[in-house]
Amino acid sequence: MQTIRVATPSAKYDVFAGSGLIRTLAPRIQRIAGRLPRRVFVLTSPAIWALWGEAFLASFAEPPIALFLPPGEKHKTLRSVESILRQMIAAGGDRGSVLIAFGGGIVGDVGGFVSAIFMRGIRYVQVPTTFLSQVDSSVGGKTGVNLPEGKNLVGSFHHPIAVFADVETLGTLSDRELRAGLMESVKAGFIRDRALVRFMEDSADAILGRDLKALEKVIAASIRMKAGVVNRDERESGLRMILNLGHTLGHAIEQATRYKALLHGEAVAWGMIAALYIAHRRGTITSAQAQRMESLIHQYGPLPQLKLRAAKLVAASGSDKKNIGGVRRFVLPVGIGDATVVEDVAPAELEAAAAFMLARAKGNRA
Amino acid sequence: MQTIRVATPSAKYDVFAGSGLIRTLAPRIQRIAGRLPRRVFVLTSPAIWALWGEAFLASFAEPPIALFLPPGEKHKTLRSVESILRQMIAAGGDRGSVLIAFGGGIVGDVGGFVSAIFMRGIRYVQVPTTFLSQVDSSVGGKTGVNLPEGKNLVGSFHHPIAVFADVETLGTLSDRELRAGLMESVKAGFIRDRALVRFMEDSADAILGRDLKALEKVIAASIRMKAGVVNRDERESGLRMILNLGHTLGHAIEQATRYKALLHGEAVAWGMIAALYIAHRRGTITSAQAQRMESLIHQYGPLPQLKLRAAKLVAASGSDKKNIGGVRRFVLPVGIGDATVVEDVAPAELEAAAAFMLARAKGNRA
Repeated sequence: MQTIRVATPSAKYDVFAGSGLIRTLAPRIQRIAGRLPRRVFVLTSPAIWALWGEAFLASFAEPPIALFLPPGEKHKTLRSVESILRQMIAAGGDRGSVLIAFGGGIVGDVGGFVSAIFMRGIRYVQVPTTFLSQVDSSVGGKTGVNLPEGKNLVGSFHHPIAVFADVETLGTLSDRELRAGLMESVKAGFIRDRALVRFMEDSADAILGRDLKALEKVIAASIRMKAGVVNRDERESGLRMILNLGHTLGHAIEQATRYKALLHGEAVAWGMIAALYIAHRRGTITSAQAQRMESLIHQYGPLPQLKLRAAKLVAASGSDKKNIGGVRRFVLPVGIGDATVVEDVAPAELEAAAAFMLARAKGNRA
Repeated sequence: MQTIRVATPSAKYDVFAGSGLIRTLAPRIQRIAGRLPRRVFVLTSPAIWALWGEAFLASFAEPPIALFLPPGEKHKTLRSVESILRQMIAAGGDRGSVLIAFGGGIVGDVGGFVSAIFMRGIRYVQVPTTFLSQVDSSVGGKTGVNLPEGKNLVGSFHHPIAVFADVETLGTLSDRELRAGLMESVKAGFIRDRALVRFMEDSADAILGRDLKALEKVIAASIRMKAGVVNRDERESGLRMILNLGHTLGHAIEQATRYKALLHGEAVAWGMIAALYIAHRRGTITSAQAQRMESLIHQYGPLPQLKLRAAKLVAASGSDKKNIGGVRRFVLPVGIGDATVVEDVAPAELEAAAAFMLARAKGNRA
């Protein structure tokens, strides 16, 4: 097990990455939260609960009250939030209650947001079960839900008191989900961790074969990278923006496909390929680096093909919430292991990058 | 004009109380927020906008985008919040946007909550127009909405960047609203400000006659009291709890009457009368003090009569969110100008206090 410390101005907590964590949660949470309160809630999905519910309950003397969120982005809504809040009131929840978000990114985002606003904020624990949620959404305190107009437009910054990333749960992921999740680690390597890039290049077989030690290494490195950035820039005023590598067009792709055709990591992967194009054209990466980086992305593919128009993607990217006062921010790789944020990517340049990416996405190399 | 500084660990801002503030808002906000962003929103009610919209707009070069919340507790819901959030997206709102909550307590609570969760938090300004919202809900950073199960069960702590309490707007309040609001000042005097109690005893004619100087004095003193408490205890861990004098049974009355029969200040006034009973029985106030305090409440009456059962109120008070782990906290006056929080008020004692209060509420003295 590896322990990664998150320390921002507003919160300090540990992320634990390793195997066997699910079965020993209760004493681990008690060590952090003190004696467990009268009401402990676990928000989960029916599928995760069917697979892992028994292991989850093993260490609790009194079983937490289970609340269920149906799967899919379409349930990541204020309506779901209201339903969960009401169930918590009905079950006697109060300000001392603790909520455990046990599932993928959607469960984590919704569970975090519910915890942020239930009686103006209660403590919560993240127990992410997908690759993506383990490396990405459980660190940083971002919580929230979607509006019909776009993703994550509503939410709070609310940090968990602890995160337990159990790599054993990755054993039940589909291949596609695992591969999509690994794109977050590819991203982590690109923006801050050359060694991780090399490890992922050299150990693809072990990683994709779900070797627990290899997974722990990739996940811990990815979390450590993100924690390092968040520790220095909690509210995304500057540095934290680099975590959005691949997100400008990634979000646009998700929006244009109504969040149905692609997994988040797949959309971000395509977005990164577009970013490589702009970075290469601007000279922040060499041609060899661009090729090597794109190869790593495809090593963890295949990525789904796309049938979209470049202009449409550029238009969709205009509603991105990272745009403050109309400025279009864009994250560019600088060599391998660094990145920078620029504000001067014109629509035409973005459209050229989108066109390059879409050409790749038709005759997919993988 | 008086300026009251709020300084908590998470926020520092000023509350301005005086006359003529509405007409000069834009330059005042610019002085605090810097150049106004591309999108400024004003959340208000149709009635307030009809009365004060023109004055509000007078100082803005570019008029803010007006969003409307229909009047009444029944619109203080997550559904209203969602509708406002979606209108803000449709109008091009982004993370740099500023929202001005211009209206009574409901507009302030909803506007604050919308600002807390729109794109994970934007800046907002409170411009409260009712007595109650000027002295109470615009200081402290509490924001939120109701659930069908109870009031303010969902929300955030999110501080405004400034509060402008213009006493001129009190000129359009109904007598009943003004009197109910003044109960908050009575409460402020009871728990921390003997001088305010005396001023309210001596100057009832000027205050109820809406003399602007008298109102400014009462409002500034009430805000100063609350700011002093909140400055020392932002998250209601201890001291801030004393602000809830009268709220245990006050909330129960509101719940039992479905938030329809009484104004908040009226319910709190009845709750304070019950608290005086317990305080007198326990000896934290003398008989003479209890009489003097109850007289002051009735001086700013009349309070509506109540037809409720004591046992029902006690049951309703059980779902109060101030109860952590089942402990029933209760705020007791200690002499005039001080208060304390106790945790040992048994249901029987609460029921006796409720019965005393209900007896008063049938043969209302006023």
